[in-house]
Amino acid sequence: MPDQKPVFLVIGAGAGIGGHVARRFAQGGYHAVLARRSDETGLQKLVDAIGDAGGEASGRLIDATLPDTIEDLVEDVERGIGPIECALFNLGAQIGNRGLADTSHKAFELGWRLATFAPFRLAQTLLPRMAERESGSFLVTSATAAVRGNAGQHSHAAAMGGRRMLCQTLNAEFAPKGIHVAHVVVDGPVDAPDTLGKMLGDHFEAYKSSKGDDGMIDPAAVAETYWHLAHQPRNAWTHELDIRPWSDTAWWNDN
Amino acid sequence: MPDQKPVFLVIGAGAGIGGHVARRFAQGGYHAVLARRSDETGLQKLVDAIGDAGGEASGRLIDATLPDTIEDLVEDVERGIGPIECALFNLGAQIGNRGLADTSHKAFELGWRLATFAPFRLAQTLLPRMAERESGSFLVTSATAAVRGNAGQHSHAAAMGGRRMLCQTLNAEFAPKGIHVAHVVVDGPVDAPDTLGKMLGDHFEAYKSSKGDDGMIDPAAVAETYWHLAHQPRNAWTHELDIRPWSDTAWWNDN
Amino acid sequence: MPDQKPVFLVIGAGAGIGGHVARRFAQGGYHAVLARRSDETGLQKLVDAIGDAGGEASGRLIDATLPDTIEDLVEDVERGIGPIECALFNLGAQIGNRGLADTSHKAFELGWRLATFAPFRLAQTLLPRMAERESGSFLVTSATAAVRGNAGQHSHAAAMGGRRMLCQTLNAEFAPKGIHVAHVVVDGPVDAPDTLGKMLGDHFEAYKSSKGDDGMIDPAAVAETYWHLAHQPRNAWTHELDIRPWSDTAWWNDN
Amino acid sequence: MPDQKPVFLVIGAGAGIGGHVARRFAQGGYHAVLARRSDETGLQKLVDAIGDAGGEASGRLIDATLPDTIEDLVEDVERGIGPIECALFNLGAQIGNRGLADTSHKAFELGWRLATFAPFRLAQTLLPRMAERESGSFLVTSATAAVRGNAGQHSHAAAMGGRRMLCQTLNAEFAPKGIHVAHVVVDGPVDAPDTLGKMLGDHFEAYKSSKGDDGMIDPAAVAETYWHLAHQPRNAWTHELDIRPWSDTAWWNDN
Repeated sequence: MPDQKPVFLVIGAGAGIGGHVARRFAQGGYHAVLARRSDETGLQKLVDAIGDAGGEASGRLIDATLPDTIEDLVEDVERGIGPIECALFNLGAQIGNRGLADTSHKAFELGWRLATFAPFRLAQTLLPRMAERESGSFLVTSATAAVRGNAGQHSHAAAMGGRRMLCQTLNAEFAPKGIHVAHVVVDGPVDAPDTLGKMLGDHFEAYKSSKGDDGMIDPAAVAETYWHLAHQPRNAWTHELDIRPWSDTAWWNDN
Repeated sequence: MPDQKPVFLVIGAGAGIGGHVARRFAQGGYHAVLARRSDETGLQKLVDAIGDAGGEASGRLIDATLPDTIEDLVEDVERGIGPIECALFNLGAQIGNRGLADTSHKAFELGWRLATFAPFRLAQTLLPRMAERESGSFLVTSATAAVRGNAGQHSHAAAMGGRRMLCQTLNAEFAPKGIHVAHVVVDGPVDAPDTLGKMLGDHFEAYKSSKGDDGMIDPAAVAETYWHLAHQPRNAWTHELDIRPWSDTAWWNDN
Repeated sequence: MPDQKPVFLVIGAGAGIGGHVARRFAQGGYHAVLARRSDETGLQKLVDAIGDAGGEASGRLIDATLPDTIEDLVEDVERGIGPIECALFNLGAQIGNRGLADTSHKAFELGWRLATFAPFRLAQTLLPRMAERESGSFLVTSATAAVRGNAGQHSHAAAMGGRRMLCQTLNAEFAPKGIHVAHVVVDGPVDAPDTLGKMLGDHFEAYKSSKGDDGMIDPAAVAETYWHLAHQPRNAWTHELDIRPWSDTAWWNDN
Repeated sequence: MPDQKPVFLVIGAGAGIGGHVARRFAQGGYHAVLARRSDETGLQKLVDAIGDAGGEASGRLIDATLPDTIEDLVEDVERGIGPIECALFNLGAQIGNRGLADTSHKAFELGWRLATFAPFRLAQTLLPRMAERESGSFLVTSATAAVRGNAGQHSHAAAMGGRRMLCQTLNAEFAPKGIHVAHVVVDGPVDAPDTLGKMLGDHFEAYKSSKGDDGMIDPAAVAETYWHLAHQPRNAWTHELDIRPWSDTAWWNDN
């Protein structure tokens, strides 16, 4: 029997923004569905932590680059758990800086497949359902690479630039149908062991120290802002905002 | 004896965004200082309503275009009530659409004086005090005219474009000192009797009906977003966001 | 024996911008190589017209969506004709307005393949050669969809948004190596029989009349601007500009 | 008797962009009117150099911050020399980096008076005349401070942000009347002895050397781009473009 709670779905649920937003929504009364590509143990830990805190959560392993995975996930969640009231697309496609010669066709395409095509697929599967219910929020975590292209970011910036424009076309079509689409430009390092932590490995702690007090974005803080976005009344929706630590230079400023 | 509550100051406190944000901060435990140019009765009504709801508020009449008014207000509030923890600059400078020939030097200068110079003066008086305390938020209500210039908006857009860049220069200097500067692009009609209501007069109700359900921005909803902004932890600050009703076309889209 | 003239290559050489820029560069002393997907007769006509006017040109048929086609073209042109001094990527991916439900995976991917991946492939093949020669221009025709996403433009806007960020990452890496990358936002209807003409069919003439005097962009005028861009000295390069008819509303303005 | 040549007017005619654009227009058949605030000798030198090269030029000393000066200049030039076909507003308002505490009210207002109000006054005086003739170009030199606000740029960025929005409102009103308004974002150091040279004094030569080959914008190169802009046919107008040296990082990129 379907759950009575509204459902929150996040694709890209690691121990950073994705996991924290899931926890925040569970705490706020949603059933949180956490989907990620691998590490079943890590996933279960997140799900259990939500349960231990009195919330409701489920975990799913999916590879968002494969056909039908996102589509089946939505179908399955809506049928088995309940209507998705809020979805967060939280997969990134940062692969570090690579010169043009070192950016393979495969890497460039994978960037698009993860960062542009996957949210398109999620939107195409989910937004018509939300539109029929005249209710829903579609949140997209994005990056500074969506608004400016730095050297070495060929794959990432092209994919994120596409993502940003996609969020605008989705908003243009679905806002008048009562669906809130929001694009969040995360412009700073997130204190996330699963992504930045893995990328930096042993250097992660030293990096964190180098950023000073409150110098890295706390994913729990981001979760509060996502929660706020998802619950703005429809007369006052925000489509885009940026987030960065106080001590970081905004992307448009000189360092 | 100084108040023990943190102080919230709004310049441009009518019955729209300004008044509602004041009420929200009072409800959240601030002493709210409401400043506006005229209508002492209306101002007192706002102050009384906050008091009736169990909050603390004071009212001040100031003309922000005159020398020393903003400066004296800050001095006076900080000395008499307490340190200002959050300020909202909420004066607009919309004068309706006027062709270039009908935009007088006086109107063009007044736009600047209200919309660009006045927030500069507030910032110059207040931000160094906040910086010394290593704490504070400076919120600025802005308009779509800050990001694109429509026909007939010579005075308004020039003033708001200046305001937006000023918010960026303030953020660049004061974010590293622990002060949160946020620029809010209000991209839609606000259900505000003191501004849009006065501009439209007898047509206000008909206009509201024409916008349909939730078709105008509710200033109480905006107040929640301002409250959220002012309380983001410093590791995750938003500098700019937009707000519009679900049924309105975003400024960047075709109508 | 290689040509002594500098070589200009355009991918997307129809009777609109592509063909006119080729003609302009041929007239200015370049050997123009015109590449397009189909219509050998039409292509030959463009090549012949350039020859008749005293210029030098060659035509190639390639399908830019297939593997190795762009790569082989560059290799072949550089070996057989001479070093490419200026390349114009001029393929669009506009497929008209389609709601999300009517945007197939295939259409969305084709948009990316044509509008984002193809210029990446051209850049990856050509820019290192130009960098080795410390000279070259890479011009990219783009669209308003690169800077804002309208309803119905899911495929086009996502692809063009990616294209714009790609141009920035290319510029960031290759400008310091002496290569000029320019992104041109064509923000208005182009008087082009092969694209807009085909899309509108019998309605093309009526549409043109409706736009009034000089109400459609003349591709010959665009060609002058491209010529100018390609010949700016490296101390004063333009990376991005917009082009529209006097009678058209800029994309950022209300209609 | 009025001149038969079209007239080009530049306000801000030093030995940098202003003087070079004047020379370019004179060489192209315009009577160039060069206006600046001071240094009659320097002005006369520019005028004489144009005459020596076979061009036609006049010089005027005006203080653009004083009432009626711009208005009288336009009136006087149009009556005495001929209809102004192209005007360039070339006054900047850069005063170097100053913290908020060191930015006096006077400096902030002067920035606005020079960089926002003065072009408004020129537009208000000149554009209706051009509109009546259904012909004319209004070029505005601008700066990166018009699109992002760096630390220390409170006066400059607020003024330039206002300038950019003003150019958009002017374009929105006057493009449909046949007047071309263009806003040029000069995003790099200009090799201009009268401005940057004066600011750097003895360090100018060392600075130039540090920028390497072609590392500073040559005002003569900028002049070619301005000439191109002013002569785009009205079916293909550019409203905004950026200019920087190949070796400089674009403002949106990390250094």
